[in-house]
Amino acid sequence: MTGQFSADRRQDRPEGGVTGHPAGPAGGARPGVARLAGMRITVPAGGVGAARFLRGLKSAAPDAEITVIGNTGDDIILFGLHVSPDLDTVMYTLGGGIDEEQGWGRDGDTYTVLAELAAYGAGPDWFGLGDRDIATHLHRTSMLGAGLPLSAATRVLCERWQPGVRLLPMSDDRVETQVILAGQDGRTVHFQEWWVRLHAEVPAAGFVFAGAEDAAPAPGALEAIGQADVVLFPPSNPVVSVGTILAVPGIAEAIRAKTVVGVSPIIGGAPVRGMADKCLAAIGVEASAAGVAAHYGPALLDGWLVDERDKAAVDAPELAGVAVRAVPLYMTDLPATAAIARAALDLAAELAA
Amino acid sequence: MTGQFSADRRQDRPEGGVTGHPAGPAGGARPGVARLAGMRITVPAGGVGAARFLRGLKSAAPDAEITVIGNTGDDIILFGLHVSPDLDTVMYTLGGGIDEEQGWGRDGDTYTVLAELAAYGAGPDWFGLGDRDIATHLHRTSMLGAGLPLSAATRVLCERWQPGVRLLPMSDDRVETQVILAGQDGRTVHFQEWWVRLHAEVPAAGFVFAGAEDAAPAPGALEAIGQADVVLFPPSNPVVSVGTILAVPGIAEAIRAKTVVGVSPIIGGAPVRGMADKCLAAIGVEASAAGVAAHYGPALLDGWLVDERDKAAVDAPELAGVAVRAVPLYMTDLPATAAIARAALDLAAELAA
Repeated sequence: MTGQFSADRRQDRPEGGVTGHPAGPAGGARPGVARLAGMRITVPAGGVGAARFLRGLKSAAPDAEITVIGNTGDDIILFGLHVSPDLDTVMYTLGGGIDEEQGWGRDGDTYTVLAELAAYGAGPDWFGLGDRDIATHLHRTSMLGAGLPLSAATRVLCERWQPGVRLLPMSDDRVETQVILAGQDGRTVHFQEWWVRLHAEVPAAGFVFAGAEDAAPAPGALEAIGQADVVLFPPSNPVVSVGTILAVPGIAEAIRAKTVVGVSPIIGGAPVRGMADKCLAAIGVEASAAGVAAHYGPALLDGWLVDERDKAAVDAPELAGVAVRAVPLYMTDLPATAAIARAALDLAAELAA
Repeated sequence: MTGQFSADRRQDRPEGGVTGHPAGPAGGARPGVARLAGMRITVPAGGVGAARFLRGLKSAAPDAEITVIGNTGDDIILFGLHVSPDLDTVMYTLGGGIDEEQGWGRDGDTYTVLAELAAYGAGPDWFGLGDRDIATHLHRTSMLGAGLPLSAATRVLCERWQPGVRLLPMSDDRVETQVILAGQDGRTVHFQEWWVRLHAEVPAAGFVFAGAEDAAPAPGALEAIGQADVVLFPPSNPVVSVGTILAVPGIAEAIRAKTVVGVSPIIGGAPVRGMADKCLAAIGVEASAAGVAAHYGPALLDGWLVDERDKAAVDAPELAGVAVRAVPLYMTDLPATAAIARAALDLAAELAA
């Protein structure tokens, strides 16, 4: 922790502040307090929840240098195309190309290719791939086929979208999140099949991050964590989004050394979006704001934002060592989301003081 | 030549004729003359011209067993997708999915994916790939990636389209037609780049069928030729369509043993469609009905249909040994095209008598 930021919620660029010179203290007069401009924030991110949080974070800290380490455990090969759902959700959301209603996929997309594939009887038919979206996967797959690592392909795709953050996959190596189905003799399915096709209705007995133990963090990921002023956990799935990223050797260790503030993905005992509760149940963690924080643990987590309705967690004994703050956590619109991000940055500043 | 057909232009199934028993004489009373039902026709085919001719042939001989050996020298990998333009043109045309106006590509197609790829700056942008069409290439590429040979992937695609012919690629091995550009120190480009991007406006000094000498005919191709009652050359490009197919070792030899009737792709000194004249010029062959027949040569060609305006070719000395007939050759509509196919079958019957 370098204490490189102020907690004054200032969004405008400070006079004399140097954007594009992210490392140095931004000329602050108050000792020990720097400005949001130039601060470095690293965010391990899943899909929809993370993407929306990041939009708020960009608004709250427009001059910060934000690095996103995206979950690629959900990546799946469909029709020979390498689909990276979480990377794309972040890229499209921050780049202005997301289907706002769905939260994933491209705005105004059509489904001609998928309908034609179905006419060929080519499966699977349970994964929505729009025509615009397919172009992204085609371009990515083509680059991977030409020998580019996923991080480089992601950089090329982001040249178009200009998401305003540096988007890295957690690893250039293949990691696949698999779901161990309960009571099926250890049978596993790809996470997407459980999540999308089975709607997580078949109970999971656990998760396997196949390939994780041999995976290396993507180039720049450990450095981005190491140089970060703060690491923020967005309200992503703690098990199969952030958890997958933490399973890549070296990443959890690097994060542990930083000031880490997380935003609870659970409000009032239920996930705001998605089915994190089912993932938590599978690994025996209570689906509550306190439960998730305890799952991350005080060795990793320094601060934790819970919703006001979960404010009892502030004094939960199992969260000793974690600074818990209760604030409104529904990301109903951009101002509300930016306020959450500011609360996280405020807490980080407080912890680093 | 087995003489397994009549020349009576009968299109209806003869009473007592046995469809689905293609080999045997179809119960004809006249010795040496069989019926169109059950006859076997093999057609080495390029794209648009061949596809339209085949539509006429199916109409003229609805009960014949037609095997099409498609040119794959024009195949190209675009955005990682294996595109087989000639196979698809035949499949879509005979299966009722062709863009009739263009002559290639899918009916009612849209270009969302291509526009998105262009937005990424991903090239090339000179090859039209519609969304519906892309589904075909995705499915094909996916099957090839799974280890299926092109012939098997083509069979799977045809299960949807039911083209009413057996469609084989000339080879499961990769053959690439390259164009040697004139006056550019032997520089070659992929045929599609010359044809589509350069509109064949840069003079060609010749063609290379890269990989052809090591290619094997696709499974069933030599058998289809060997068992054919007649081999018909459609009005395809004699250099880069039929010529490419003939470059696969074994195919020309097998065809030479059969009764072969061709349809001139040149009418009145110009190709009806496409730029065959530019291909012919590159290899020093006169762009005329007689020139093309002489290029194939009497060792390969037994009969040759020319348009009425080219009837001088009937007595051309260089075509000694080839039976030349002048008939209307414009494939203006299905009846006109069927009449051309019947004329070809009539000539074959005459030659086999």
